[in-house]
Amino acid sequence: MSTTPAPAHRQLHLNAFLMSTGHHEASWRLPESDPHANTDVEHYKKLARTAERGKLDSIFFADSPVLFGEVGRRPAGKLEPTVLLTAIAGATEHIGLIATASTTYNEPFNLARRFASVDWASGGRAGWNVVTTAGPDAARNFGVDDQPAHAVRYERAGEFIEVARKLWDSWTDDAVLADKEEGVWGDADKIRTIDHEGKHFKVRGPLNVPRSPQGHPLIVQAGSSEDGKDLAAKYADAVFTAHQTLADAQEFYRDLKSRTAAAGRDPETIKILPGIVPVIGATEEEALELERELDRLIKPEYARIQLAKTLRVDPEDLPLDRQLPENLPSEDEIEGAKSRYTLIVQLARREQLTVRQLIGRLGGGRGHRTFTGTPVQVADAIQEWFDGGAADGFNIMPPVLPSGLEAFVDQVVPILQERGLFRTEYTGRTLREHYGLPRPENQYAGAAAPELASIGSAF
Amino acid sequence: MSTTPAPAHRQLHLNAFLMSTGHHEASWRLPESDPHANTDVEHYKKLARTAERGKLDSIFFADSPVLFGEVGRRPAGKLEPTVLLTAIAGATEHIGLIATASTTYNEPFNLARRFASVDWASGGRAGWNVVTTAGPDAARNFGVDDQPAHAVRYERAGEFIEVARKLWDSWTDDAVLADKEEGVWGDADKIRTIDHEGKHFKVRGPLNVPRSPQGHPLIVQAGSSEDGKDLAAKYADAVFTAHQTLADAQEFYRDLKSRTAAAGRDPETIKILPGIVPVIGATEEEALELERELDRLIKPEYARIQLAKTLRVDPEDLPLDRQLPENLPSEDEIEGAKSRYTLIVQLARREQLTVRQLIGRLGGGRGHRTFTGTPVQVADAIQEWFDGGAADGFNIMPPVLPSGLEAFVDQVVPILQERGLFRTEYTGRTLREHYGLPRPENQYAGAAAPELASIGSAF
Ligand SMILES: Cc1cc2nc3c(=O)[nH]c(=O)nc-3n(C[C@H](O)[C@H](O)[C@H](O)COP(=O)(O)O)c2cc1C
Ligand SMILES: Cc1cc2nc3c(=O)[nH]c(=O)nc-3n(C[C@H](O)[C@H](O)[C@H](O)COP(=O)(O)O)c2cc1C
Repeated sequence: MSTTPAPAHRQLHLNAFLMSTGHHEASWRLPESDPHANTDVEHYKKLARTAERGKLDSIFFADSPVLFGEVGRRPAGKLEPTVLLTAIAGATEHIGLIATASTTYNEPFNLARRFASVDWASGGRAGWNVVTTAGPDAARNFGVDDQPAHAVRYERAGEFIEVARKLWDSWTDDAVLADKEEGVWGDADKIRTIDHEGKHFKVRGPLNVPRSPQGHPLIVQAGSSEDGKDLAAKYADAVFTAHQTLADAQEFYRDLKSRTAAAGRDPETIKILPGIVPVIGATEEEALELERELDRLIKPEYARIQLAKTLRVDPEDLPLDRQLPENLPSEDEIEGAKSRYTLIVQLARREQLTVRQLIGRLGGGRGHRTFTGTPVQVADAIQEWFDGGAADGFNIMPPVLPSGLEAFVDQVVPILQERGLFRTEYTGRTLREHYGLPRPENQYAGAAAPELASIGSAF
Repeated sequence: MSTTPAPAHRQLHLNAFLMSTGHHEASWRLPESDPHANTDVEHYKKLARTAERGKLDSIFFADSPVLFGEVGRRPAGKLEPTVLLTAIAGATEHIGLIATASTTYNEPFNLARRFASVDWASGGRAGWNVVTTAGPDAARNFGVDDQPAHAVRYERAGEFIEVARKLWDSWTDDAVLADKEEGVWGDADKIRTIDHEGKHFKVRGPLNVPRSPQGHPLIVQAGSSEDGKDLAAKYADAVFTAHQTLADAQEFYRDLKSRTAAAGRDPETIKILPGIVPVIGATEEEALELERELDRLIKPEYARIQLAKTLRVDPEDLPLDRQLPENLPSEDEIEGAKSRYTLIVQLARREQLTVRQLIGRLGGGRGHRTFTGTPVQVADAIQEWFDGGAADGFNIMPPVLPSGLEAFVDQVVPILQERGLFRTEYTGRTLREHYGLPRPENQYAGAAAPELASIGSAF
């Protein structure tokens, strides 16, 4: 659609991962931070407009249907992301809006409808980060005492996406005739039941929302276990992931691209975005000083309780100035977030970190790579992974908000643009267009629709 | 909070019930109507601003998790209401925002959170119309072949509201300490699990959203069966209802107020709002001409199919120019929307309507009272019921949108204001304040909170 000449260099995709006062766990304690930001839509609208000024592809909110963490430690509790993103949609024009939602604790009909609604409300800018939700605590908010097994959660996730795609396709794009003359609004031959019957779901359809601007909202996936990668290879348009080293990221990138090809898809159509926590200063010294200031504000008591929970040990078994105990469970035994568990243990072992040091490293980005330096150094770090076959773009996780996002947009983005790595203007309108992905065909195109029985209504 | 002197007359409450191109089923066929309005947030933002110009208490969207009706007949499918209302929140400042959601096809944790989020996103303007969702078709979108029985649906609804209220109270209003100096964000003694265990739900909590501006979003109820009235008496702040005659409305009003008193509540704290479809013209003749024009555009074939479904007979058994057949099921046998069923049958019998005439009467407001006349006559009709002990206000259901809402706001509201029946300015900020209702106390105030175990997180 755009008439701009094709750029000389492959283009980066950048997503801003937003979280109250920032990703560093102590960010809320800085004088500049508003500790009530987590319930303030104006805070988030402002962040989204900043990201849009930087021409970023999208913003993103993580989520889980449970209150987690030590509530003393950092802002806890947050607005439901599809609600929050809808509030932001009205304050922005281009930027994509990605919300996390769990396939374990939702019904496909309700969720498919909600994302289709956000897609309509934003003019085609909705994305769904599909997660399976790790941990037994969420289960207890839904009448069950423990979470389904990891493999079962992923099996349900795959079927959930299948049902959602059928529902999104249950109206053809031209199903609304709006024929005032004849008095026929919708074409009953173009709106169909889906009659899905599978292991986890039985759903009749059709959806009660016309097919949305993007056809299907963008599908994002963020679990890096074996099952997580297989789900991504089959369904994801974009993948968020966490890696500490270039080698790990390259390995993950190669692996996921080849799984995607094996699933019969063009590997170009899955965009892999590792996380990076950029701690930015005008000079290296300034950047290091910001990092030190943040780390000084961490209270290790809180973090230790959470680390113990992740590692499935007693907090008493984690003295702050010793390394991790020898015999920790293997990834196989973890029913929660497998890939993040392994990353944390490997990081501690590889760098021989004490518990206190490990807590410092995790406090900045919970396992995501922290990079501290000048704008040019940050741009170099991004380009190294991008050119080195480790990334199609990045998940930008500012340690402090709004200032860390402003620094990235005003100081790092211009460098990436000068290098021809990143757009200077939006060329598309929808989130799929920003990521260079086509609008999905309707899987029922051309198929005869089963007869749509009339259903009563009496409000 | 306001310093205005108390008004001389009891004050009306007015809600605008919004629905695509209007409540009349043929409204979409008028030249002025946009038949794609049902997916257009700009259309609804404009309507909400019009309602706000008229100082109305609130706007409202009906909903059901199913596509219903004949899709040829009128705009079908709509955006999920909490999403739509959040989009509207950003375009308005005062007006209340009421969304329908089903207790039969949702989980309390997810829904309580969503409404708390809308309440935050709107600065305390969220309301929830609690419905049990009639009809087997919705069930089939959720893995079940038929709906739970009417009584079971209402039993679940009661427990659902209980759980939601516990979750909304799981944070005290002062739970966020935000103590930067000491590094303590939330007070673990003021955020508690709810440990609910009942017949339908087992929910641990706490909610993952701080207590919202209104404490609890406004609770609205709209089912008028015996069970529906009992639910309202126990929990509702406002009630939507449909009546054709003053006598029926008075009877309902008396009955519900006394049930409310019997439930141990002040009957002043439940606001009863019958529906009215005002067909407004500068002269009586102009109003009648608009009504006739709309009725001419109805296609009775569609409406007959739906009527047959409601009455549980074959469409062939409803010849257009005969009266309803003699032996129809009694209300006891109806597992769907009991009260609306009875209203329709009684209307047809009382006025000896043919099927074609009945369809005409239902086409305007689906059983709600249609009133056709000049602005003064509409104001008189409203005042008659209001002063006559039949209503605390009205649910305004414009037959055509936007024009019917504009006519009401610009021509009827000023008359009501002159008569001292309706506010000329908003005096409160929240939806509860508009309805003159207090902010709910926290049910756990003063109670010791059970210890809040830490829960891991690793995004
Ligand atoms: C950037 C990023 C964001 C994530 N956001 C969420 C989230 O919001 N909710 C969630 O349950 N999991 C989220 N995850 C995934 C979890 O960290 C974890 O990997 C997943 O729940 C379990 O998947 P796995 O066992 O396949 O690793 C995110 C992961 C990444 C890399
Ligand atoms: C103004 C008004 C709006 C209503 N909106 C809805 C709605 O959005 N969804 C719904 O399922 N029922 C709605 N109802 C209720 C149904 O009409 C019906 O009464 C209810 O589903 C069954 O309750 P009952 O058997 O107690 O009458 C509404 C009722 C009124 C009066």
